Amino acid sequence: MNMNMTKQQIINQLIPHLQPAKLQAKGEADVNIALSKYWGKRQTELNLPTNSSLSIGLPGLGTKTQLTLIEAEHNQAWLNNQLLAPDNPFSQRLDNYLAPFQPSGLKFKLQTQNTVPTAAGLASSASGYAALALALNDLFDWQLDPASLSILARMGSGSASRSIYQGFALWHKGEREDGMDSVAQGLSHTWPGFSIGLVKIDVNQKPIGSTAGMQQTVKHCELYQAWPAQAERQVKLIQQAIEQRDFTRLGETAEHNALSMHATMMATWPPILYWQAESVSAMQKIWQLRQQGIEVYFTMDAGPNLKLLFLAENKKAIETAFENITIIQPFG
Amino acid sequence: MNMNMTKQQIINQLIPHLQPAKLQAKGEADVNIALSKYWGKRQTELNLPTNSSLSIGLPGLGTKTQLTLIEAEHNQAWLNNQLLAPDNPFSQRLDNYLAPFQPSGLKFKLQTQNTVPTAAGLASSASGYAALALALNDLFDWQLDPASLSILARMGSGSASRSIYQGFALWHKGEREDGMDSVAQGLSHTWPGFSIGLVKIDVNQKPIGSTAGMQQTVKHCELYQAWPAQAERQVKLIQQAIEQRDFTRLGETAEHNALSMHATMMATWPPILYWQAESVSAMQKIWQLRQQGIEVYFTMDAGPNLKLLFLAENKKAIETAFENITIIQPFG
Repeated sequence: MNMNMTKQQIINQLIPHLQPAKLQAKGEADVNIALSKYWGKRQTELNLPTNSSLSIGLPGLGTKTQLTLIEAEHNQAWLNNQLLAPDNPFSQRLDNYLAPFQPSGLKFKLQTQNTVPTAAGLASSASGYAALALALNDLFDWQLDPASLSILARMGSGSASRSIYQGFALWHKGEREDGMDSVAQGLSHTWPGFSIGLVKIDVNQKPIGSTAGMQQTVKHCELYQAWPAQAERQVKLIQQAIEQRDFTRLGETAEHNALSMHATMMATWPPILYWQAESVSAMQKIWQLRQQGIEVYFTMDAGPNLKLLFLAENKKAIETAFENITIIQPFG
Repeated sequence: MNMNMTKQQIINQLIPHLQPAKLQAKGEADVNIALSKYWGKRQTELNLPTNSSLSIGLPGLGTKTQLTLIEAEHNQAWLNNQLLAPDNPFSQRLDNYLAPFQPSGLKFKLQTQNTVPTAAGLASSASGYAALALALNDLFDWQLDPASLSILARMGSGSASRSIYQGFALWHKGEREDGMDSVAQGLSHTWPGFSIGLVKIDVNQKPIGSTAGMQQTVKHCELYQAWPAQAERQVKLIQQAIEQRDFTRLGETAEHNALSMHATMMATWPPILYWQAESVSAMQKIWQLRQQGIEVYFTMDAGPNLKLLFLAENKKAIETAFENITIIQPFG
């Protein structure tokens, strides 16, 4: 097991001890959708980002994880009631993440249930590593504060730093080399009527995973130079928009941010295009709806699916325009 | 008629006199496809670009223009045997362009035939203004050198500066305020087997014209900051690739350049997307062909159509993969 000393040192700072308080513990976290994206790592081992990001959690869509200490040769990872092979990349990533916490003589049995419907087309690594950090906190009874949990989750998956919270969350990129200031905070603001529509677009295979995609973009995209400053500015704009409940500003900024992130992917070499033909058709439909006065915007992550942003007053119009859409109102 | 003095002064420098040598003259020019794009003006009146560009002419696809001096109240513009109304934007742009050359008491009758099949989906302003500059040169018997003709054509449409030449042409962006060094040169290199495939993708209406599109990008796209330096570098790479007949370098650079230009469009606000769903399907097909070892690249302009770049040895494979493709081999 290759352990990076930096990571180990940070964990030593974060957690008070390595004595399990019980044999079984649980953690639960929601997926989140970034309104201003995380795209680019300044440090890969600790998942330190080149820019801050801001997200909204999707209540009820996420991960429930149960962690049990067992006597066994290997850790066991069960995903939706299926035992993963030890050489599965998912298992190996988990082994690597859990290594610093391994009590001597015992192994982890991880049972994870994703409550994200497959049809939603959402990535679950954010909720997965947040749930796991929460389960570890419970197992060892560390009683960590949310900021420390956010750092712990971030080391598993960058966007997991935000899934420690419900509602809006802002992940500050931080400046420090050890990442102790690269931490998400929950924003207390609510927004009744704020709605998210998940439009699933089918794809056989992703062209490239998001970590590899962002690494390639940082290295081989000249246009990326301007991204970190733009993203930083847009996080502030979206934060203001949330505070002022200025939906137009929020929607425009989020859509501009997402398109700019995808622009940096396309402008790298070899090019990265997560879009499918149907992604373009859905965008055109959204732009048509806006021209008709229905205020709806979209955001997209490292995949072909669109996530629509709108207010409750337009729910009917959106449901009419998009078949099989999943609508979530985070604040009711 | 609002005449900009700068433009008038430049024309005074370029042309020796304003005495017609005959009553009827002709000009003919080919369309060109930029392998490294012109995207952004540093000065709009003279069409001075923010970056150099490099193109290939398409022999036989272009514009034939006949210019006749007539006694009439207005200039007449005939496009493919149809008289345009004087308030047609096309007529007005022509009037504006022709104003500095108007002999007193006479008007221009312009008869333009585009030899570009509509199915090819090519813009004809480049060949149109190059043909017109050549017709003016003939009418007045100025005997201008190609560089002066290139400047004259450029003031009608930026990319027309390159259509003065056949084969490869490099439009140097220039540094001067009067644009006297913003001029295209023909490259003498030929490349037998070099092939271009025109894949037409239907669209009802362009979201925005290319001039407005580039203006908006320059003003409202943060990622655009890196474009001019990237484009300058890529013009040099493509020039080298032509000199060394390095098709891989040419194709990769051209595709990267085109995707980067489109990336700057998407990353502006409001976003500009010339792509259709079918554009994405065509890209995916091209990337699949490359994975299968068939070396084909694409470029795209301010529209949804793809222009394929390949060598003659792959012509059959390309014809099989793309129905209704128009293939041109500029050097036979």
